Amino acid sequence: MSLEVKEDCLGWAARDSSGFLSPYNFARHEIAGVVKEVGSNVHRFKVGQHVGVGTYVNSCKECENCNVDREVHCEKGAISTFNSVDKDGTVTKGGYSSYYVVQERYCVRIPDGYPLTSAAPLLCAGITVYSPMMRHKMNQPGKSLGVIGLGGLGHSAVKFGKAFGLNVTVFSTSMSKKEEALNLLGADIFVVSSDEQQMKTLANSLDFIIDTASGDHPFDPYMALLKTAGTLVLVGAPSVKLSPISLLRGMKSISRSATGGLKEIQEMLDFCAAHKIYPEIELISIPYIYEALERLVKRGVKYRFAIEIEKSLK
Amino acid sequence: MSLEVKEDCLGWAARDSSGFLSPYNFARHEIAGVVKEVGSNVHRFKVGQHVGVGTYVNSCKECENCNVDREVHCEKGAISTFNSVDKDGTVTKGGYSSYYVVQERYCVRIPDGYPLTSAAPLLCAGITVYSPMMRHKMNQPGKSLGVIGLGGLGHSAVKFGKAFGLNVTVFSTSMSKKEEALNLLGADIFVVSSDEQQMKTLANSLDFIIDTASGDHPFDPYMALLKTAGTLVLVGAPSVKLSPISLLRGMKSISRSATGGLKEIQEMLDFCAAHKIYPEIELISIPYIYEALERLVKRGVKYRFAIEIEKSLK
Repeated sequence: MSLEVKEDCLGWAARDSSGFLSPYNFARHEIAGVVKEVGSNVHRFKVGQHVGVGTYVNSCKECENCNVDREVHCEKGAISTFNSVDKDGTVTKGGYSSYYVVQERYCVRIPDGYPLTSAAPLLCAGITVYSPMMRHKMNQPGKSLGVIGLGGLGHSAVKFGKAFGLNVTVFSTSMSKKEEALNLLGADIFVVSSDEQQMKTLANSLDFIIDTASGDHPFDPYMALLKTAGTLVLVGAPSVKLSPISLLRGMKSISRSATGGLKEIQEMLDFCAAHKIYPEIELISIPYIYEALERLVKRGVKYRFAIEIEKSLK
Repeated sequence: MSLEVKEDCLGWAARDSSGFLSPYNFARHEIAGVVKEVGSNVHRFKVGQHVGVGTYVNSCKECENCNVDREVHCEKGAISTFNSVDKDGTVTKGGYSSYYVVQERYCVRIPDGYPLTSAAPLLCAGITVYSPMMRHKMNQPGKSLGVIGLGGLGHSAVKFGKAFGLNVTVFSTSMSKKEEALNLLGADIFVVSSDEQQMKTLANSLDFIIDTASGDHPFDPYMALLKTAGTLVLVGAPSVKLSPISLLRGMKSISRSATGGLKEIQEMLDFCAAHKIYPEIELISIPYIYEALERLVKRGVKYRFAIEIEKSLK
C-alpha cells in the first residue's frame, strides 16, 4: 500500500469479528468489528463505530466499473480480502485475525443496534443474493421468486424475498428442509426438485430464480418454470448446459452474479436493519472450527457459522 | 374464427407480396401487400394502404403478454402465419398466395413510400434482431455491438446497429464476407471467429452480442468478449454449453429472443422508413424458387430472397 493509501486507512481491532467458515479458500471475508483507529484522511468513520469488510479490499478506483460503484467488477480485478496480493505486494489475510487494516472505501457501516454477528454473513452471502434481486427489480411486491438450495445464500434470498413482499418458492433436493423453509424462513411453497409433478404445476410461474447450488445440475427443468422474460441467476459456479427449447420461448435468460459494490452493500445493511432481517447463524468459538468444517462438508450447518474471534481470544 | 373476429378482419390481395424462402417450415411469414377490402369494424386500415403480416396472426388477446403488446409470447401460444391451426380450426397458409385475410390487430402499416419488397424481410428477420436490441437499450450511440453470422438476420442487425450509432463488430467463420460487411453494410470491425489472436484483442469490449448462428457452436469464446453485465442474445436455436468461467465474472447473461409484438413491429417499420434502412434483398419470381432454395441451403443468398407474387402471376 502506498503512503497515501495508508493515510486513507482506518484500522480496527475486531471485538466481535465473525468469519464465514468454508472449506474453500475464497472465503474468510465476512468480517464485522469495531473501529479502533482511523487514519488522518478518513472522514466516514470514527473510533468505536461498528463496521464490516466484505470480499474485497482494493480495486483500481479508475475504471468504468469502479466509477459506477461496481468495485467488485473492477476491470483490473478487485483485490480479495483473503489470500490475494495487494497493489503494494502484501498478501491479504482475511478475517481470522484480531484486527484488520482496510481502506475507508472498502469498509461499510453496520447500523446502530444491528448485531455484528448477524452483519458478518451479509457481507458475502447476503450481498450475493441481494445484488441480483435488486438489479432485476425483484424488490417489487407480488413478484414470484424461486430459490434453489437452502444454505447460507439461499436462506438469505428467502428472507429478502419475504421482506420485499414476494411469493417465494424453495427448491431442495430433499424434504428435510421443508419445515424450516416454510415455518422458520416464511417461504410460500416448498418443492422437492425431483418431484416432476410438482415442478410441472409451476411451469411459467416464476419471475426470477436464484440458483445457489454450486455443483453441476440440470437447468432445463428450472428454465421451464420462468415466466416470459424471466431470468435464472447463478450464484454458484456450475457448468451450464441448456437444450434449445429452454431458451427458445419467452425471452428467458440465464445470468450470473458475484457480490456487489460498496454502495450496494451499505444499502443492504441499512435495509436489513430497517426491516429486522437477520441471517440465521450459529455462534462458535475458535477451538470449534475443525468440527464446524466437518459439519460444513456434510451440510450440517444452519445456515452460517459465525466465529466470535475476540471472545475466543480472551 | 368467430363471427366477431370475422367482422374485425381486413382482407387484401397481395399486389407485391414477398415471402421469406426457407427450407424450414416455420417461414413463409414475411408478407407485404396492399389492402383490397376491409371488414365493417376495421378502423386502422383503408383500402389501398400498404400493410404487412409477420410471423403470427392470432393470439388469446387476454393474457399478461397480449395485454402488454407482446402477442408473440401469448401464454396460450400465438398462432403462426403458416401451417398452424387457428382458433376456428382453419389451417393458416402463409404468404404463398395471392391474398391473405387477417385480423386488424395482427397487421402493420408499411410507411408511405417504403418499398413493399424491403418491408417483407423486416417482418421476421428484422424484428428478430430489432426487438432484443431495443429491449437491451442497444439504441444508444457509442455502445458496442457484436453480430455473429451475416445472413438475413445478421445483416439487418448490422444495419440497425449503424443507424443507432453503435460500433459494430461482425463475426464470421470465413473471410469471404469481409468486404461486404465493412463496405456494403458499414460494420466497423470484421473478425474471423477462428482467429484466436483477434478474438483476444476484443476481450471485455462488447456491450451486447446478437448470435444469429443456428447450428451448435461454442459460446465461451464470445462470452469472454462481453463487458461487465453484457448480454449475448441467441436468435437461432442451438444447444448451449457454457463453462463455469464464462459466466463467473461480470454479471454476464445469455438470453434468447423471438420476434416482437405488433406495436414494436410498427415502431421498427417507422424507424426504417425514417432512417432509410433497407434490408438487402434479391427479387425473384415464383418459377425461380427451386433454384433459390438450393442457393439458400448452400448459403448463396445475399441476404434475403423476396418473391414478387403478383408480378409472377400476371
